[in-house]
Amino acid sequence: MSAPSLHRPLPLASVPHWDMEVDVAIVGFGAAGACAALEAARAGARTAIFERSGGPGGASALSGGEIYLGGGGGTEIQRNAGFVDATEDFETYLKASNAPYGDAEKYALYARSALDHFAWLKAMGVPYKGTYLPGKIIEPTTDDTLIWSGSEAAAPFCDLAQAAPRGHVVQHVGWGGGKLLMKVLAARVGEAGIDVRVNARATGLIADGAQVVGLVVRIDNRDVHVRAHRGVVLAAGGFCMNRTMLERYAPQALALNDPIGVVDDGAGIMLGLGAGGDAIHMDQFFTTCPWTIPEPLSQGVFVNVRGQRFINEDCYHGRVSRTAIDQPSGKVYLLVDASAFARPIDAARISLAATGETWEDVERELALPENTLAATMAFYNQHAAEGRDPLFGKRPPILRPLAEAPFAAFELDFAGSYFSFFTLGGLRTSVDGEVLDRAGAAIPGLFAAGRTTSGLPASGYGYSSGLSLADCTFFGRRAGAKAAAEAQGVIDD
Amino acid sequence: MSAPSLHRPLPLASVPHWDMEVDVAIVGFGAAGACAALEAARAGARTAIFERSGGPGGASALSGGEIYLGGGGGTEIQRNAGFVDATEDFETYLKASNAPYGDAEKYALYARSALDHFAWLKAMGVPYKGTYLPGKIIEPTTDDTLIWSGSEAAAPFCDLAQAAPRGHVVQHVGWGGGKLLMKVLAARVGEAGIDVRVNARATGLIADGAQVVGLVVRIDNRDVHVRAHRGVVLAAGGFCMNRTMLERYAPQALALNDPIGVVDDGAGIMLGLGAGGDAIHMDQFFTTCPWTIPEPLSQGVFVNVRGQRFINEDCYHGRVSRTAIDQPSGKVYLLVDASAFARPIDAARISLAATGETWEDVERELALPENTLAATMAFYNQHAAEGRDPLFGKRPPILRPLAEAPFAAFELDFAGSYFSFFTLGGLRTSVDGEVLDRAGAAIPGLFAAGRTTSGLPASGYGYSSGLSLADCTFFGRRAGAKAAAEAQGVIDD
Repeated sequence: MSAPSLHRPLPLASVPHWDMEVDVAIVGFGAAGACAALEAARAGARTAIFERSGGPGGASALSGGEIYLGGGGGTEIQRNAGFVDATEDFETYLKASNAPYGDAEKYALYARSALDHFAWLKAMGVPYKGTYLPGKIIEPTTDDTLIWSGSEAAAPFCDLAQAAPRGHVVQHVGWGGGKLLMKVLAARVGEAGIDVRVNARATGLIADGAQVVGLVVRIDNRDVHVRAHRGVVLAAGGFCMNRTMLERYAPQALALNDPIGVVDDGAGIMLGLGAGGDAIHMDQFFTTCPWTIPEPLSQGVFVNVRGQRFINEDCYHGRVSRTAIDQPSGKVYLLVDASAFARPIDAARISLAATGETWEDVERELALPENTLAATMAFYNQHAAEGRDPLFGKRPPILRPLAEAPFAAFELDFAGSYFSFFTLGGLRTSVDGEVLDRAGAAIPGLFAAGRTTSGLPASGYGYSSGLSLADCTFFGRRAGAKAAAEAQGVIDD
Repeated sequence: MSAPSLHRPLPLASVPHWDMEVDVAIVGFGAAGACAALEAARAGARTAIFERSGGPGGASALSGGEIYLGGGGGTEIQRNAGFVDATEDFETYLKASNAPYGDAEKYALYARSALDHFAWLKAMGVPYKGTYLPGKIIEPTTDDTLIWSGSEAAAPFCDLAQAAPRGHVVQHVGWGGGKLLMKVLAARVGEAGIDVRVNARATGLIADGAQVVGLVVRIDNRDVHVRAHRGVVLAAGGFCMNRTMLERYAPQALALNDPIGVVDDGAGIMLGLGAGGDAIHMDQFFTTCPWTIPEPLSQGVFVNVRGQRFINEDCYHGRVSRTAIDQPSGKVYLLVDASAFARPIDAARISLAATGETWEDVERELALPENTLAATMAFYNQHAAEGRDPLFGKRPPILRPLAEAPFAAFELDFAGSYFSFFTLGGLRTSVDGEVLDRAGAAIPGLFAAGRTTSGLPASGYGYSSGLSLADCTFFGRRAGAKAAAEAQGVIDD
């Protein structure tokens, strides 16, 4: 019983001696871990981060560095761009887009706190140019800030809440702003005197009864026993790179081949479960294929192999992609006319499946039954010409007839095309980042944030870009602050 | 720490004294618990069943008493009716219909063991008339035996494996044969000298380290501490009646209002999780609405509020119903012509939403966009007249044009109509019913079966009638036998 395990905490009595003593020990140095550490240190806690890889970053550094922000009337950047963003609209959108998944308390708290959180990010030195970039954009290739990054302006959400762009991207030219975000946060961590250990893999929690009191970390091929006087924060990402966990908990994602992660093997979730935590919404995952690039393609129409449309394509590309994955036969088609034609980026691995002078030609070349795809496009074009999409509520200007020959169908193949994905299910936590047990009580000494938890991005259908980093940074901060404030019972050490 | 809890085993040291000593303690007296008890007792184990309600039955007694059986060339009843059922076809169907969910080992074992299992059921006195009843039937109202109870003869499964009817129903006139099945099994339990305690609610497991050694049961308002020398079998049903668990683990089922259960609050799953077990596929649930009754309605066509078909309606009614629940706006329409018209049974709470002399009339009365439902039906009828369904592969004789006026649309409303449901996710177990921990190891002394586990019916989309009782009875037996064979380490009691 004295070997550390992800699945069962080491009893305190089995700890030979403490190799390190801290107040707050954090597992993982992505955005969630960094923000937890910064708040723990600010509260005066001796804080250490243990990162399994050779340096900071995690999946956060692989992201676009975009954070979903709004409410309170809008950030200065939203307001300068002419948008008002009431807290209620922000909250309504977050809840509605993630329903029936998601934690209402987290949405309510984040919606009323995001402006303060933005101020904190800026105070940390995260740079924002402050400019607005209209259009349907995955990530700016410029260094602009504000983009439409969700389904706010699309049905059904635009009928439920006033829409506003809420994606706030760090000032960074080109894709991959997450690297800069992490560079800034890591610099602040360094300045704060936080003890950072890399190549340091957490292999087990240490518990005194039900209370988590420390952590075993593998460093230089030996077990380092870390006493965490106030708490341990699990911020080790999700499980998109663990095939066994996907089979058990999110088998639909097995169809996809491009996880966004560094070592996202679910170790943080397993540590939490082993200590009595509860994991929820484990079937949910984010996925997207960059089908909106170049921009003309975003005006395309999706059909499944039955020639049926299945979504309003003006909503968030990830919502389209997640719904696509539910379609039969492992593929969907993106239909464009000459005016919407463009060559997809190579990285997308989207292939041209058919072309023709009419939609009937395309239908035939795809070997779809006669009068399926062609009928769908005739119906679509007829109404698009009137500015309507009676089936899905797609809106102009993306809604427009695709009637200019030649026509083409691109194939998005779930196994072959680039469908990036990461998992959204994880530990159930309070709004303070406390890991909750199955009875709903906080596990003393144990906290979690980011994709180790089920958080703001609770449903793959409801994802908006920037929601995961919003969750990581905001609830990471709260987890670190709460851990630092924890007064543990005295144990004899 | 000495109060029993569903979420954490009581340490052995906290047991004041043993009130009862048995070899195998079984939680729940449905089909799974009964079969586990019978095999444990047959193996010579002192066996007790603790049932929370006032008597045997559980959700099994609310069922049709149908068991999904085949393979090995076919049961005698299948063969007498002219069907051959190779083990490989049986296994292929089970795997394919449940993909990407389900445990390949369980399917393989059950497919090659079902004939022996059928012999055991008959030896227990479960009566079968032995007759075949053709047609599309939910449950016979006669006392016939063999029915088509899944999607075997429907696309895509009929192309993957030779189809055969496999639903074997107890000899019982009318619906609700599950009562008879449970009566027979309970009679055998009584004869086997098994100690049955009713109004006896399991409130916690008792563990010595990682090993489960007993159970706390609330009887007559006091805690009874039961020593289980060989093992505890959790057979306490699923969680369809626990709203909190549905919110966390299967939120899509919250749309439905008719759980099939007695007290299915997930207590068995929670007990297993608390002892270190792993729960998988927790998002999956069975649902069905009795839309195929009376029989003419089974020839209808389903469309969603967009006028799109979404399934080949000749597959299992539950597969249709589960797919229906994914459709937008909380409802779907069942379309029939004069020749397929019938009044749905009152219990189904299916309403007549529109009628008309043409499909265009129906479309208009439903306020659907012009040329949606009507176009779908024109396309359907055109191909049905040729005996084809190019979109979904529906087959004659159910596939036929619906062209005889007047026409009608029935509305199936997810919240209003009768959509019975129960959960399919649960503890991950070995083929011997051992509860597995998250590392994949068996938890010593802990077993489970039935809807407390994820078993043969792993996916709501792949359900076939009789699959849950097959799972409960077959893997219930295995769990009881394995528990009885368990040699525990000596503990000081």
